[in-house]
Amino acid sequence: MEALGRQILVEFYDCEQSRINDLTYVENSLIQATKDANATIISHNFHKFSPYGVSGVVVIAESHVAIHTWPEYNYAAVDIFTCGDTIEPWTIQENLKELFNSKSVSSMEMKRGLFKVPKGQKLLFKPSQEFQSN
Amino acid sequence: MEALGRQILVEFYDCEQSRINDLTYVENSLIQATKDANATIISHNFHKFSPYGVSGVVVIAESHVAIHTWPEYNYAAVDIFTCGDTIEPWTIQENLKELFNSKSVSSMEMKRGLFKVPKGQKLLFKPSQEFQSN
Repeated sequence: MEALGRQILVEFYDCEQSRINDLTYVENSLIQATKDANATIISHNFHKFSPYGVSGVVVIAESHVAIHTWPEYNYAAVDIFTCGDTIEPWTIQENLKELFNSKSVSSMEMKRGLFKVPKGQKLLFKPSQEFQSN
Repeated sequence: MEALGRQILVEFYDCEQSRINDLTYVENSLIQATKDANATIISHNFHKFSPYGVSGVVVIAESHVAIHTWPEYNYAAVDIFTCGDTIEPWTIQENLKELFNSKSVSSMEMKRGLFKVPKGQKLLFKPSQEFQSN
């Protein structure tokens, strides 16, 4: 079986509360971590909630990176969904761990889109250039 | 242990190709399915790729719903991340199955943000009103 994509679900516990409650800091962190992993950013969209919490998504040509933070629990949930061989999702996790100063991290990698392919062949990775946005 | 959120990872195989390659159709499907599950939509952002594929995210007050489609494999990966008790994530899956005419669905539910709480107590779910967007 070959997978079209891989997804890392990351639990960042014991984060620095003020950082993960700061909309601009969280957004810049995800953008920087995503760029450092050689991803191509298509759009990013972040929101702050009252009284606490930030949610946001960076859509990349290679899929997406999403975050939801619960500063009141010093916790942030991050999803790193990638496809193709040009991007290394684990570097995103490592960068965010430092940026949020998380003292306890739990991660799980999932394969997405499993298909049988003839031996020696690979799934075709589609070209990633965008041509239309809503 | 109590969880702050739940996440359903859905693999929609054997979808109708033309539907999951249609930016407007995919976007409208996610918006409709999300509304039908009583979610509060904050933003949505979708992109079409060349030659195939649609990626997009609906950010909701209760977290997010994301999609990446590979029409060339009749496949769509969907993540449904929710928190709180007011939204039923499985209805989103059921609605999208019909909208994409998927003949084969595989799903997995994950708990996100696990914390020990005293017996009989629950984790506090933060109010979801937004007060700032980037």
